[in-house]
Amino acid sequence: MTRRIAPEDLHALALGASILGAGGGGDPYIGRMMAEKSLRTYGPVSVLDVDDVPEGASVIAVSGVGAPTVFHEKIPSGREPAAAVRRLAAHIGVRAFAVCPAELGGVNSMVPLVAAAELGVPVVDADGMGRAFPGVFMETFHIYGLPGTPACFANEHGDLVLLDRLRDNYAYEWLARGVTTRFGGHAFVADYPMSGRDLRRTAIRGTLRLALDIGRSLLAAQAGHRDPALAIGAAAERGGYGRGLRLFTGKVVDVLRRTTDGFARGAITIQGSGEDQGSALRIDFQNENLLAVRDGRPICMVPDLVCVLDAVNGLPIPTERLRYGYRVTVLGIPVPAIMRTPEALGVWGPRAFGYDLDYHPLSEI
Amino acid sequence: MTRRIAPEDLHALALGASILGAGGGGDPYIGRMMAEKSLRTYGPVSVLDVDDVPEGASVIAVSGVGAPTVFHEKIPSGREPAAAVRRLAAHIGVRAFAVCPAELGGVNSMVPLVAAAELGVPVVDADGMGRAFPGVFMETFHIYGLPGTPACFANEHGDLVLLDRLRDNYAYEWLARGVTTRFGGHAFVADYPMSGRDLRRTAIRGTLRLALDIGRSLLAAQAGHRDPALAIGAAAERGGYGRGLRLFTGKVVDVLRRTTDGFARGAITIQGSGEDQGSALRIDFQNENLLAVRDGRPICMVPDLVCVLDAVNGLPIPTERLRYGYRVTVLGIPVPAIMRTPEALGVWGPRAFGYDLDYHPLSEI
Repeated sequence: MTRRIAPEDLHALALGASILGAGGGGDPYIGRMMAEKSLRTYGPVSVLDVDDVPEGASVIAVSGVGAPTVFHEKIPSGREPAAAVRRLAAHIGVRAFAVCPAELGGVNSMVPLVAAAELGVPVVDADGMGRAFPGVFMETFHIYGLPGTPACFANEHGDLVLLDRLRDNYAYEWLARGVTTRFGGHAFVADYPMSGRDLRRTAIRGTLRLALDIGRSLLAAQAGHRDPALAIGAAAERGGYGRGLRLFTGKVVDVLRRTTDGFARGAITIQGSGEDQGSALRIDFQNENLLAVRDGRPICMVPDLVCVLDAVNGLPIPTERLRYGYRVTVLGIPVPAIMRTPEALGVWGPRAFGYDLDYHPLSEI
Repeated sequence: MTRRIAPEDLHALALGASILGAGGGGDPYIGRMMAEKSLRTYGPVSVLDVDDVPEGASVIAVSGVGAPTVFHEKIPSGREPAAAVRRLAAHIGVRAFAVCPAELGGVNSMVPLVAAAELGVPVVDADGMGRAFPGVFMETFHIYGLPGTPACFANEHGDLVLLDRLRDNYAYEWLARGVTTRFGGHAFVADYPMSGRDLRRTAIRGTLRLALDIGRSLLAAQAGHRDPALAIGAAAERGGYGRGLRLFTGKVVDVLRRTTDGFARGAITIQGSGEDQGSALRIDFQNENLLAVRDGRPICMVPDLVCVLDAVNGLPIPTERLRYGYRVTVLGIPVPAIMRTPEALGVWGPRAFGYDLDYHPLSEI
């Protein structure tokens, strides 16, 4: 079992995190460069199981917030994640025993490693989303009752903003968005300061190693000329998610996009081929893929993962790169029970995204 | 000399602050209600001269920021000013010896009294603007080198946001505006934490008593059927400003308004009567009156005060209430030397507001 993350692990981790991103979560490229530099400068980062964090220890979540597209043009200094954690810890008067990823889908798989390396603390093998979501309250930390604040925002100028005490996590989301916008569209944040006890109760466990295993399995399948979708599906099951299922194979024949309310919304239509010949699959997305509808019937819905992979090499395709003619395999991955409770579905079930649909787990459909 | 501010002083203070507001600064009505309640609840507030503040003591500026129009609809709880000061003092680890008005023109004459009464500390007889201005960096505290941050923003929900460390006061203005917007358009802020030494070096002195004296002089002139403009002009001179001069008398014949970049911009034209018969005066405003131009020649310009008064009763008319047909007297009041240094004019001289004009003091024109 992986006990440390070293630079040579980052390629597989980024790949696995992109698959957990389900079309969103941002391209981990810049984040990977940041993590690589940090790990080479400060050495590998230790990985801790949730149960190895003492109950009374302080853990702080760390992530990037805002538009991944901005992140690629407004290059970070690399010091922001550690600066945010350090300031938040000082503000509340604790020593950060470890940092925890807020989100493991996409670019935010890398940010905690950057912070952990510079701070010389371990990273917890867990996160608060189990995939990618667009809001700071879309985390199990919120769902299971933790306040997101105090939270500290940092940018490349060394500016630090503390959201000290806010009435609830929706106010936190609202202010976080305001600060991020004024920081130029992207910021790094340390938030959800919690005890080991809170972490054990609220975190989605094992998602860091899950992402690594998914990435490594995909690379091994590519090297061994085996089916990447099958390898990814099996890795998901080993990591505590459900076994990933091939939902559909075909050609993208329609892409609809609009950017409204700060989200990249849209839908793609895939015309089936092979055993899916004669069928069509529509995938709706809001930053992330949310819903797969086969011939008018919903077959996989948020929070379960709808992953669009290149049909040939199995690489994940983010929604912004989908275009007419792409040959794709669509994989569905069932999420673990902690992500499917009534409380969780209230925050990130289909209705929370505006669909008039009750959640049905992929495993039952 | 006034040593305490009691509820019965608030009417005159609000009136004087409106005149110092030079058409802007917001109607002090709601602020006056807040101050009246605070003074009745906690007792009168002591007024301290700048030189009575020990050099090593901590002073914190306090004010409302955002749109005065919002302030009139989103009624405050009354606890915000003290909450902001208290949190900021705790954040930097000091005890606030006194609070200082950030601005004495308009509604912000009242906010420091609300904070001081609840906190049981004196208010300093000084401010950072000497009139009203729309930016948190448009203060002598900024002009003479103090950082505005750390600053604490509070709202009626008890939300607290700390702008902890920002690269400069322009970044502070930018973030302050972002937080204020997300707070619904108005917030209370404690900022520019400073020592008594810094206060002595940077503050505009005596402006609280000046506003009181202007208000009382106006009320006395009204009661005694004397010329209010003359009374205001004399009070200004007693308070360390230049003697106020009647610039023009006439009828408003044109009002132009547009709201651009978050400012109420516009101009009015006044047709002269009496000894000004045959002349016209144009006044340009951006929230506050900035420039008076008589028959094409600038005769009074920012930071000197251009005050539009009702020709009959001498009451100040805010820019938003100016309309065709109003009979007005325009008073110009020269500001003290600390507001006219090259550093100060760089921040709030005519060029800082986009006019291609060198500043000429009213006394020389």
